[in-house]
Order: sequence, then structure tokens, then C-alpha cells
Amino acid sequence: MPVGTVASVKGVPQDVLEELGAQIILGNTYHLYLRPGVETVRKMGGLHGFMSWNQAILTDSGGFQVFSLSELRKVSEEGVTFRSHLDGSSHFFSPESAMEAQIGLGADIIMAFDECTEYPADAARMRESMEMTARWAARSKKYFEEHKQEVPWGAAFGSWLPATGTEDVGTAAIGCAGERQFARAAELRSAGQPGAAAPTCTGKTQSLFGIVQGGMDRALRKESAERTIAIGFPGYAIGGLSVGEPRELTREIVESTLEHLPKDKPRYLMGVGTPEEIVEYANLGIDMMDCVLPTRAARHGLLFTSEGKVSIKQARHAQDQGSLDPKCGCKVCGRYSRAYLRHLYASNEVLAQVLNTIHNLSFYLDTIERVRHSILLGEEYRFLSGAGLDRNLEL
Amino acid sequence: MPVGTVASVKGVPQDVLEELGAQIILGNTYHLYLRPGVETVRKMGGLHGFMSWNQAILTDSGGFQVFSLSELRKVSEEGVTFRSHLDGSSHFFSPESAMEAQIGLGADIIMAFDECTEYPADAARMRESMEMTARWAARSKKYFEEHKQEVPWGAAFGSWLPATGTEDVGTAAIGCAGERQFARAAELRSAGQPGAAAPTCTGKTQSLFGIVQGGMDRALRKESAERTIAIGFPGYAIGGLSVGEPRELTREIVESTLEHLPKDKPRYLMGVGTPEEIVEYANLGIDMMDCVLPTRAARHGLLFTSEGKVSIKQARHAQDQGSLDPKCGCKVCGRYSRAYLRHLYASNEVLAQVLNTIHNLSFYLDTIERVRHSILLGEEYRFLSGAGLDRNLEL
Repeated sequence: MPVGTVASVKGVPQDVLEELGAQIILGNTYHLYLRPGVETVRKMGGLHGFMSWNQAILTDSGGFQVFSLSELRKVSEEGVTFRSHLDGSSHFFSPESAMEAQIGLGADIIMAFDECTEYPADAARMRESMEMTARWAARSKKYFEEHKQEVPWGAAFGSWLPATGTEDVGTAAIGCAGERQFARAAELRSAGQPGAAAPTCTGKTQSLFGIVQGGMDRALRKESAERTIAIGFPGYAIGGLSVGEPRELTREIVESTLEHLPKDKPRYLMGVGTPEEIVEYANLGIDMMDCVLPTRAARHGLLFTSEGKVSIKQARHAQDQGSLDPKCGCKVCGRYSRAYLRHLYASNEVLAQVLNTIHNLSFYLDTIERVRHSILLGEEYRFLSGAGLDRNLEL
Repeated sequence: MPVGTVASVKGVPQDVLEELGAQIILGNTYHLYLRPGVETVRKMGGLHGFMSWNQAILTDSGGFQVFSLSELRKVSEEGVTFRSHLDGSSHFFSPESAMEAQIGLGADIIMAFDECTEYPADAARMRESMEMTARWAARSKKYFEEHKQEVPWGAAFGSWLPATGTEDVGTAAIGCAGERQFARAAELRSAGQPGAAAPTCTGKTQSLFGIVQGGMDRALRKESAERTIAIGFPGYAIGGLSVGEPRELTREIVESTLEHLPKDKPRYLMGVGTPEEIVEYANLGIDMMDCVLPTRAARHGLLFTSEGKVSIKQARHAQDQGSLDPKCGCKVCGRYSRAYLRHLYASNEVLAQVLNTIHNLSFYLDTIERVRHSILLGEEYRFLSGAGLDRNLEL
């Protein structure tokens, strides 16, 4: 899932995201809550209407970003008090207010409010934090069940449907976009992994996912998974990883946690990763991932290619007439030379960010498309990260 | 002509410029000379190859920008010594070196090296400056005639032709793009104004235009026009306007200068203007104009619409579900609300610049398309700036 922090995948117009085949993007509740504010987005028919995006959207709960404001937050059983990074104003997020915000934003998939355990943390801290997340998950679900009909997919949204190309998408169907994704994921998985089921599209409300925490402790992860499943959600995320731990440890925790998550529900690994990592985790059974890496790296001139990472700012590209990645079919590689991309970056031109981001997203989405294809073909055709992907590993 | 200072119309990919119908764009020799450097562009087959743009390109001579560096330049009969705004390094532009640079950049239309007279200036200064421009025009033409075959439209360019959609454009034909524009302008003008002729496309070299100076003095402008015509160029520009003088004075000088320029050659007014102004000058007989206004204003959230200027940053747009300009057919107005555009701008998102620029360029190109249409229909259908355009006047 490309990350569109404040209802914009930085530098990329929505029609280009459609061309790239993006089926779902992610918005950040913390940022959207501060600006433009939930009420504004709600009045515009939710994020779909506000940003004119008819594919699926997922919002995080705001928890991870609030916890990142280490100097500016205070955590209690009730929730988290934090200060805005924009103007220092004081705010409060609880499981209930995080749900209220996400219902107002109207994404297809929303996330329970959790506590992302810091790394490293001792055993007592990991347990305490995991238990807090479990209690917050129950409160998140309770609030969601009581208010899920308040999602702004009504007349207000219908009034801002784009004029072309989407006439066949009814208002009610928009709410199903996320579940249509699950259905496709389940269908794909069922080719290689028995036990998958296709969820029914309700078309009426959002889907609230639970989040498994438990730090780097396998037993705590198992307990967290079981307690989250006991509450019951249509999908489950693995949170609290990619927070500074060694990559081997990430993989170990992902693998062990997956054993305890139902195979007939989407399994979402939050905040990863490099192109090789997303292939690796998909092979383990992960269905959904999000990461700022392709978009953020693009802004720093770091480009992923079939032959490894390219730092486009380097002088050696200054007169290179070749395309960035001859094996890539994106519109950037099809039209521009490395020399031109290097010039745009060196000249601090906005077009550098635009083109770099389009390519990196294309590379990521193509990578996952290859994974999907290999799943359809079956176990013996499993797509493993090749030599080129391996070279993207070290960032 | 949209301005693409360093071989990029800021924030807009080339395929979008094509969709917008841009037939010619402008590059700035001063900026390109400093970065990426003429030699790099030359090796890439000139600007067309470097930036992958197969429509026409015009480069200025660098003179105007060098003269804008008032603290960093020294003018002599030989040329101008100046310091780079990037690193303070010292450089020298003469009519000969400006031609050398522009031949290396390989635009379709290049400009004689002139001195842009400051405003206000006394009579002696205006004459002295005009005479310097006349001598520099002769030197520009002499150097150009002796070196015009060095334009980099050879095998090097052909090797970087995009793979799709342009197979029918031969390498030699690229050099004609500019003249194909003249041919179209002349054809259009001939509908309303007798005496127009269609230049022959040589397909081999660039077209060097002369520049008329003379400050705000009608007699000096006449003399400058006559001396420039005596040297002989395939097109003539009016320079030294829009430098701080009242708009009435600009119009007066344009009108009087046009009387002395041949109607069968393109007449180019440099550095204008608002949407109303480009309609006004086109009605006076101007064939070509360039201005940073649509792109620069877009970056500051100032948008041109059929109902006048819109400052998208204003809070009153925060929950406006309407499109920016309901009468505009561009992809921005067709998809996004004012509320979303306002949010992107307020959040300092790069997409704000991208979308705002696409709209403003669309508005300008549509305006000129209406002018062309009215010329084809004849005198009685002359397109005058309407109520909406008038409201874009005061910036």
C-alpha cells in the first residue's frame, strides 16, 4: 500500500496512481486529524470524496505516530495526550476518539488503537504494553460497533464522484472496495494455501482490523494474537515491528505470529519494507504491507531497480543516456534518461520527486504483482527475491 | 510558451504537457549553461533528447537573466561578466558565446544576445543600449551563420528518441518543429491579416531570432526594428518590456513597434503576461509570448479561472466541494475540489504545485487556443478578453 499521509501520495496525482495499478493506499489519522481535520473530510464524504480516490483506503489509528512524538506525549489507561508537531497545541487520542476520527475519515479499512511497544523493552514492559493494547482493542471494537453507521458514505460523497470512468461504481459499493481487496487476496492465497475464504461484501460499513503487539517475545505475541482473535476482527495486523530491531528478529516474530492468525482473514504487516522484504513476508503468508520507503527514498534520490539500488544524485549518471531500469515498464523508465533524472535531482526540481516516486511505486507494485502471479501458479512457481532484488536490501 | 527554466516545466511531466497541447516550451540558457552545462545537453542530443520533448523548444540568449543579476555583472562592448547565483563563480557571455551555448542546447528557435535596457532610463542611455543591442545582433548572426551546422541533431539525438508514439518523427524533422509552428502561425494570421507567408522548413538548422530594444522611446524602437531587420532574421522579438513600466506604456510601445516589423515573420513579445494581456497582444498582431506567470503563480496558490483569480490558500475554500473552474476541461478541474486543492496547498504538499501548475497552464493554453480559433473565423469573430479574463488582470 503506497502511503498517502495527508490524503496525497506525495507528488503523484491520483490518475497516475490508477495507471500504476495501486488498489489501496494508506492515510495517516494523526496527520489528517490535525490537518485538514476530521470534520472537513467527513463533510466532503470521507477520504474517497475528499481526495477523489475510488479504490480502497486504509487509515492507521494514529497510535504509531503519536507514540513517535516521544517528547510530546503522555500515556495513561484512558489514552494518550500529545502535542501537535504543527503548532504545539494539546490533543487527546483514546480508543474511542481514534475510532471516531477514523469513522469520520471513512476509509474502507480502519485500525484499532494500539500501543506500539518501543524497542528494546524488558519483559515486564512488553507484557504491560501488550495488555494495554488488548484492552484498547476491546474498547476500539465496542465504539466501532456502536458508531459504525456514522461513516460518511452518503449523499455528500455521491455528489463529488468524478464525472468520468466511474459511473458504474455505486456509492454503496465504495464501502466494499477494501473487502473486494480481501476477496482477491483470499482468492489468490487459496491457490497456494488451502483454507482461504472470500469474505462477504456488506457495502455498508468499514472494516476494523485488530493489531497484535507483544514486543519481541514469541509467547507474548501468541497471547496477543489469541486475545485479539477472541475480540474478533475481519482482519489482523502485526504491529510493533520494524522499530529498530535486527531484520532476522523481525522475520522470526512475523513467522511465529502468523502461526496464530487465521488463514481465512487478511494478515497485515505494518510498516515494511524493502522490495526483498515484501517478497519474503508475502511468501511467509502476509497479505498486506505498507511502507513509506518507496516514496521517501524517491525524495532522497534513492531508486529501486531490477539491478539494485541507484542513487540518482551520483555524478556518474550525469551523461548516462540509458533508462533508469531497462526492465521496468513504467512511464519514467520508458521516456527519460538517467542523465535527465540526475539533472532534475541535482537542480532540486520538483519534477525529480514526481518522477522518482512514480518509478519507485511502479517497482514496488510490479514486485507484488509478480508475487500474486506466482501464488496463482502454485507452490512450485514461488517468486523468490532474485539477484536484483537482493541488491536493494541494504539502504 | 510555458517556461521550462532548467529543461523542466516545474512540477509537470512531459506527457502531461503533451496532453495539455503545449506546442513549444522555453528554456533559459543562463540556467542551463550553469547546470547541467551545455556540453552535457549537447552530448544528449540537445534539449529535445535531454528532456525527451519532441515538440518545439525556444531558448533565450541568457542576456535577460544576466542583466537581472544587477549586483553580480559588468557590461562591456565585448560582453557581460557575471557571477553564478549558484556558487559565485565568474563567467562571461558575449554574442558569440551565447550563440555557442544555444547551438549546443539545440533548441528550434534561439535568440540573439541583447542588452535589456533597464526602466526607467534616460534618452542617452536608451540610445546607447539600443545601439549596443544592434551591434550584438550582427555579431550573433555572424557567429550563428558560421557555426549553425554544429547543432547536435545527429545520431546522438536519434539514439534517445522515445520508443512509442513518435516513430513517425524523423530526426531531421525535429529541427523543423519551430518552423512548423511559424507555418501554423502564419497560416492562422493569413485568415485575418493579409500578407502572411509560410516559411520553408529547412530541417537542418535552428532559427535565430533578432530582438528589438529601444526602451520606452517610439523613435528608438523604430530605429531598432529597422536595424534588426536590416541584419535579417526569420523572426523578430520585442524585448525590454514588462520591466516595471505602466501597462499602458507597454501596450503603446508594442503597438508602435509592431508597425515596423514584417507581418510575414513571427513576432514574439518577450515576458508577458496575464491572460487578458496575452489576448490583447495577440489581437495587436503578436504571434508568440512567454511568461513565468502561470507556473510561478501556481506555486503561490494563485489560480486563473473563467471567473477571475482564485487564491486557493484562502480559508473560504476549505470545505468547498466545487471544482476550481466549472468551465475548465482540465484534469484538475474535472477531478478535484477546491477544498482538496486548498488542503494540499495549506499542507505544503508537492501535489499542490503539480495540480495548480497543470490547471494554470491549461487555462493559458485554452485562452490562446480561443484566440487562434477567432483568428481563423475572421475579424468579426475577434476574441476579446471577457468579464472573467478581466478579473484576472490585477495580480
